[in-house]
Amino acid sequence: MATAMTDTNFADGSIDAPTPCLVVDEAALNHNLRTMSAALPGARLRPHVKAFKCTALAARLTEHGHHHFTCATLAEMAGLIRAGLATDLLLANETLDEVKLRDVVALAAGSNQPARITVAVDSAETIKVAAAAGVAEVLIDVNVGLPRCGCAPEYAGALAEQARSAGLSVRGVMGYEGHLMMVEERAERMDKVASAMELLQAASTAVGGEVISAGGTGTFDTNSIATEIQAGSFTLMDTQYSTLDLPFQQALWVEATVISVNRAGGWIVADCGLKSLGMDHGDPTWSGGDLWFCSDEHVTLAPADMDAWTVGDRVRLAPAHVDPTVAKHERMWLVSEEVTPGSPRAITEWPVDLRHW
Amino acid sequence: MATAMTDTNFADGSIDAPTPCLVVDEAALNHNLRTMSAALPGARLRPHVKAFKCTALAARLTEHGHHHFTCATLAEMAGLIRAGLATDLLLANETLDEVKLRDVVALAAGSNQPARITVAVDSAETIKVAAAAGVAEVLIDVNVGLPRCGCAPEYAGALAEQARSAGLSVRGVMGYEGHLMMVEERAERMDKVASAMELLQAASTAVGGEVISAGGTGTFDTNSIATEIQAGSFTLMDTQYSTLDLPFQQALWVEATVISVNRAGGWIVADCGLKSLGMDHGDPTWSGGDLWFCSDEHVTLAPADMDAWTVGDRVRLAPAHVDPTVAKHERMWLVSEEVTPGSPRAITEWPVDLRHW
Repeated sequence: MATAMTDTNFADGSIDAPTPCLVVDEAALNHNLRTMSAALPGARLRPHVKAFKCTALAARLTEHGHHHFTCATLAEMAGLIRAGLATDLLLANETLDEVKLRDVVALAAGSNQPARITVAVDSAETIKVAAAAGVAEVLIDVNVGLPRCGCAPEYAGALAEQARSAGLSVRGVMGYEGHLMMVEERAERMDKVASAMELLQAASTAVGGEVISAGGTGTFDTNSIATEIQAGSFTLMDTQYSTLDLPFQQALWVEATVISVNRAGGWIVADCGLKSLGMDHGDPTWSGGDLWFCSDEHVTLAPADMDAWTVGDRVRLAPAHVDPTVAKHERMWLVSEEVTPGSPRAITEWPVDLRHW
Repeated sequence: MATAMTDTNFADGSIDAPTPCLVVDEAALNHNLRTMSAALPGARLRPHVKAFKCTALAARLTEHGHHHFTCATLAEMAGLIRAGLATDLLLANETLDEVKLRDVVALAAGSNQPARITVAVDSAETIKVAAAAGVAEVLIDVNVGLPRCGCAPEYAGALAEQARSAGLSVRGVMGYEGHLMMVEERAERMDKVASAMELLQAASTAVGGEVISAGGTGTFDTNSIATEIQAGSFTLMDTQYSTLDLPFQQALWVEATVISVNRAGGWIVADCGLKSLGMDHGDPTWSGGDLWFCSDEHVTLAPADMDAWTVGDRVRLAPAHVDPTVAKHERMWLVSEEVTPGSPRAITEWPVDLRHW
């Protein structure tokens, strides 16, 4: 990891890194980590690494007492094990890739620390793959309303029996209420989450085991049934989650260089675009004015104050969706918290080392 | 590059690679390359590598007679030079990164073959950077209607003088009519492209030089003014371009494994999603039924024939936008053209080696 010093002001200035690049404000990140660990201390939170895909950030979570992680891919699991962060890893996803799963089990077995590997299963086929790959422990993935993975709640008990018959230890259940993350009204969100979690609780009774794993950033404090919450986006945040009444701050931006200024037309162009921004939740947000559109490597912006802009300036955009945005980059730049006002701050390179599959 | 043999049928079957992955049908690719090189032979086409970011595919274009390439990033230029594909490279974009640009110039100077490096400029600042980085040749980038880079047409002549005063050789002009790529009616597209190109032609007269570089896949045969067309997407295609009356075939898919089947609910889940698909033009298309939604690592599909699907099956999705889709992957798998019906076909790994910046 490279570290350099910068004397630019983080609020208005820029860092001296090639663009487009990801910039993380350590002060905001620390606020988010402190806030979450106060609400969900230790193993009550199982941070989901898919949101940030970075072992350096995962290590910060361990400093706040969170040692159990959630993964969406086997590459995330392998990366965490290699980084020595594999106390207790859950693949909260189904996999049919017996070869890669066996590699992860072997990696964990060969690591210097106890590395507990658990995978979600929701079918006879996924149970078979887990057993064949040498996995010891599973969770029964239960559908709680989102049309995605997970068995029907009433089938969870029978599936747990199948898993035990295949030699697997069943730690409990998981069920992701992803369809409820963005319910705007808090009271309505609480009601709907409670209904979804009733299904998971019933499945838990049928399955046995001590784990009820669920939740995300949108429901971290409205899900009272889960024994552990799988939130990840709270660390860096995005403009979609910021529309909810959450106590987390935007900590990540895409920084770009202004490469063209059209004063007569009233627009400027910066060098980030569709290849450096996750676009599925829509355009990113710019505090300096309107955003017209993104192209592959460009964004066209209409500044509120056109005269303020010159070719070579920097802009910062807040992404609409943090997970796919981070996954497009090889690194993020952490700008350290200001200790002495006005003094230079360290810029540390954090590899986005949990990418791909 | 790894090569293996497969005996699955490309039209309906799958390849034996970990998912999610990019699959390229060589027969369709060859059709597209043949069709384009018949319409725009040799240097009449300056293929844009941003669409496929792969030197192995660029090498195929050279086999069809196209040796001059268009780039959107300095990483694309550097990669093409390292691959020995740098006869004549155009950065059709503005850059303020003097350090990386100097590196590209040095790389080109040190290569075994004549490597001509040209960059687009549209301001005093970009001219200054090009000169300072040791670039020899530039094009004056002219705005022809798309609110992005490019100087006002009436300013092009003066800018060319500035560039010459800075010691740069001016090869001509470029102007991207990106706002006209998706005009549905062919006659209307021709009219509008002609109007936009009138601006570029006037700028060309003022600037001098022999090059008028413009166009893309959507206007490759409606732009009669440009001396060279910067098309790239025609190689692999996507569902947005396939809505136009173009003679190119879909040649690229994202292949995924079915990891969950919900027979009662009428949906299946496969392991590709927002991190393996460019989503800015909307959802990908699945020939087997409806697509409900994409999550980070999942797609939920409603098959026309639910009974046909089992956990472990493969699906193929056609992306809505090829450029940002390819940029998310480390490799693509080329499935060779069928020579003897029914015989195994080679699967060749093509690294997506022109990614990032």
